[in-house]
Amino acid sequence: MNISERIYVDNSATTQVSEAALMAMIPCFTENYGNPSAIYSFGQEAKKILEDSRVSAGKSIGARSSEIYFTSGGTESVNWAIHSVCERRNSKGRHIVSSEIEHNAVLKTLEKLVKQGYEVTLLKPDKYGQITPEQLDAAIRKDTILVSVMMANNVIGTVLRIKELSAVTRKRRVLFHTDAVQAVGHIPVNVRELGVDMLSMSAHKFHGPKGIGILFSKIPHIPAPYIAGGGQERGVRSGTENVPCIAGLAAALEESVEKLPESMAYLTKLRDNLIKQTLMIPGAYLTGDPQDRLPGHASFIFDGIGHSAYLINKLNDIGICASSGSACSASSKESQHVLKAIGIREALAVNSLRISLSSGNTEKEIDYINMKLPECISMLRKKHTL
Amino acid sequence: MNISERIYVDNSATTQVSEAALMAMIPCFTENYGNPSAIYSFGQEAKKILEDSRVSAGKSIGARSSEIYFTSGGTESVNWAIHSVCERRNSKGRHIVSSEIEHNAVLKTLEKLVKQGYEVTLLKPDKYGQITPEQLDAAIRKDTILVSVMMANNVIGTVLRIKELSAVTRKRRVLFHTDAVQAVGHIPVNVRELGVDMLSMSAHKFHGPKGIGILFSKIPHIPAPYIAGGGQERGVRSGTENVPCIAGLAAALEESVEKLPESMAYLTKLRDNLIKQTLMIPGAYLTGDPQDRLPGHASFIFDGIGHSAYLINKLNDIGICASSGSACSASSKESQHVLKAIGIREALAVNSLRISLSSGNTEKEIDYINMKLPECISMLRKKHTL
Repeated sequence: MNISERIYVDNSATTQVSEAALMAMIPCFTENYGNPSAIYSFGQEAKKILEDSRVSAGKSIGARSSEIYFTSGGTESVNWAIHSVCERRNSKGRHIVSSEIEHNAVLKTLEKLVKQGYEVTLLKPDKYGQITPEQLDAAIRKDTILVSVMMANNVIGTVLRIKELSAVTRKRRVLFHTDAVQAVGHIPVNVRELGVDMLSMSAHKFHGPKGIGILFSKIPHIPAPYIAGGGQERGVRSGTENVPCIAGLAAALEESVEKLPESMAYLTKLRDNLIKQTLMIPGAYLTGDPQDRLPGHASFIFDGIGHSAYLINKLNDIGICASSGSACSASSKESQHVLKAIGIREALAVNSLRISLSSGNTEKEIDYINMKLPECISMLRKKHTL
Repeated sequence: MNISERIYVDNSATTQVSEAALMAMIPCFTENYGNPSAIYSFGQEAKKILEDSRVSAGKSIGARSSEIYFTSGGTESVNWAIHSVCERRNSKGRHIVSSEIEHNAVLKTLEKLVKQGYEVTLLKPDKYGQITPEQLDAAIRKDTILVSVMMANNVIGTVLRIKELSAVTRKRRVLFHTDAVQAVGHIPVNVRELGVDMLSMSAHKFHGPKGIGILFSKIPHIPAPYIAGGGQERGVRSGTENVPCIAGLAAALEESVEKLPESMAYLTKLRDNLIKQTLMIPGAYLTGDPQDRLPGHASFIFDGIGHSAYLINKLNDIGICASSGSACSASSKESQHVLKAIGIREALAVNSLRISLSSGNTEKEIDYINMKLPECISMLRKKHTL
């Protein structure tokens, strides 16, 4: 292992664009660059790429193309989903149920709504980050209009039992939205099997490009007009369609889903090796669900390292790109609210590490991390006990 | 001229991505694909591309990088600009002044606001699409919080006198926003010289990628939180930054601005030749300002052709991609509201043609259009008088 090479293990933050995605995108930049709204053939060719991508992306998650709305990314999808339900259903009530471990795209949107008079109940997860159907059922009120619970957590890798949760909302006749940004392309996601009404996803989490995402909505009239203008996306999300990135999203998604059995097995093996070795370090703890977790996701807490930023920097010095638990954590401390929600006290919560793998990672790279991580931890502990 | 080649003259709808933009983008997809929020070097390298692009894009329009906010495109920028002023200034009043010839991104946003209790005055332009400072001054009231007038019109190519209009708003202490989607990269745009407070633009109109735009705001606190989440773009527009497309925007903009004197002279020459020849067709009329118009923009009305869709299709048959006046017009009839606003009666307004050039177009292509257009018009007239 040559340490001048970079080991990128922060794939929950963002991923490299795949060859398949890039090959789908480049012709849309330089050849089929027409505006899909134009009526001449060249525009209609772009329209065909757009609609074929919609069909393909829908198929990849078990949805009809008519249920797919393209957005500028997961965050927009989540904002739009929640605002839409509020706009469409506020005559029924103004209560929303979510969880304490949601991404800030959900939490900050809910904070805004609280200022507008909405009531929000945030469910407290168990120590593994799981929410139970009983908990959810108990939280739903007569005036509850929406439940939004994420499918997989970015900080601790826990995969939540969405199917069990959506069964509750169906029975109670409440709409269910899931933020599946960390799930799509990493574990099987079928909107019918999951039983969700709305789902948000982002291409750059599964080797598609940044700046493009999907809002899935089973109910046609739910997505309320969000960005006004030329009337694209069935009149609810205006702006010239981002055909190249949409084509890239569809290609990356198709490839990810096709390779899922293989990649899940491969990543689980790498991950389990990494977890096993890391837990041999004294004072190292796994965060999140030991069983139901994302195949490539390993997250830890280390006693006495001072702050995860020291560890991230130490790993950076030896060519390893890892994070404390969230892409946005540098500024927003986003990983900490999740760790606190699962019962980790503040002094420990600042000592987190997330290693998130992709199929591009090798056993050799994991061996290297396994070799170097104990040294880094040990050096930091020496420094912080001096 | 081989007519099997395509002649793309709908550059106001969208443009081919330039070599410079593509070369700036590709490494961001495959090599520097890190998340700019990550603290390790690989993330900070992406952050550097992001911030260098912000500096470069700002410089291209005479703005500081701190005044540049990246969005998913022109439509989002416009929506955000208008909503922001409403949110930040509604204690001062709820009156907005705009014009009848704005793009639907502005008009549809204003329609939504009217439903929320805002009052909107739409200024009626003269026959060339111009708004006078006197008109604007007369429309501003004590409770006016925003004036939004476009810099260049997409349908008729008129370049409005923004500097004169912003002088009025400055005197009257009202914020001024300009939708410069059709102007940036095509004519000189310097936010200081224009005297605007806010400006919206879109990369794919100047050979940058689709799905990326800028909102310029001179006043730091005006852009109100728009998409909630990880806190990117100084906390007001969340979502992982679209680094590849941002780099592409900056490269395309820099190139467009650098080549502006040359491209404006070249396009003006092609356009004037096209206008001169087309106006020799009996019953052909130029729409928009004959003097103050976009260098590459020629727009017409033809008597007796039935509907512009017939003409667009006829031109399409011989390899010419042109439009009736707006990329979104197929579904939204957007060109017609502009033509009616400048006094063209409905029966004629449906007979519009827009030919919008880029530096990639050649004299030979214009010669071919000049040769074929009279034939097409003539055939359609025969058909519609039978």
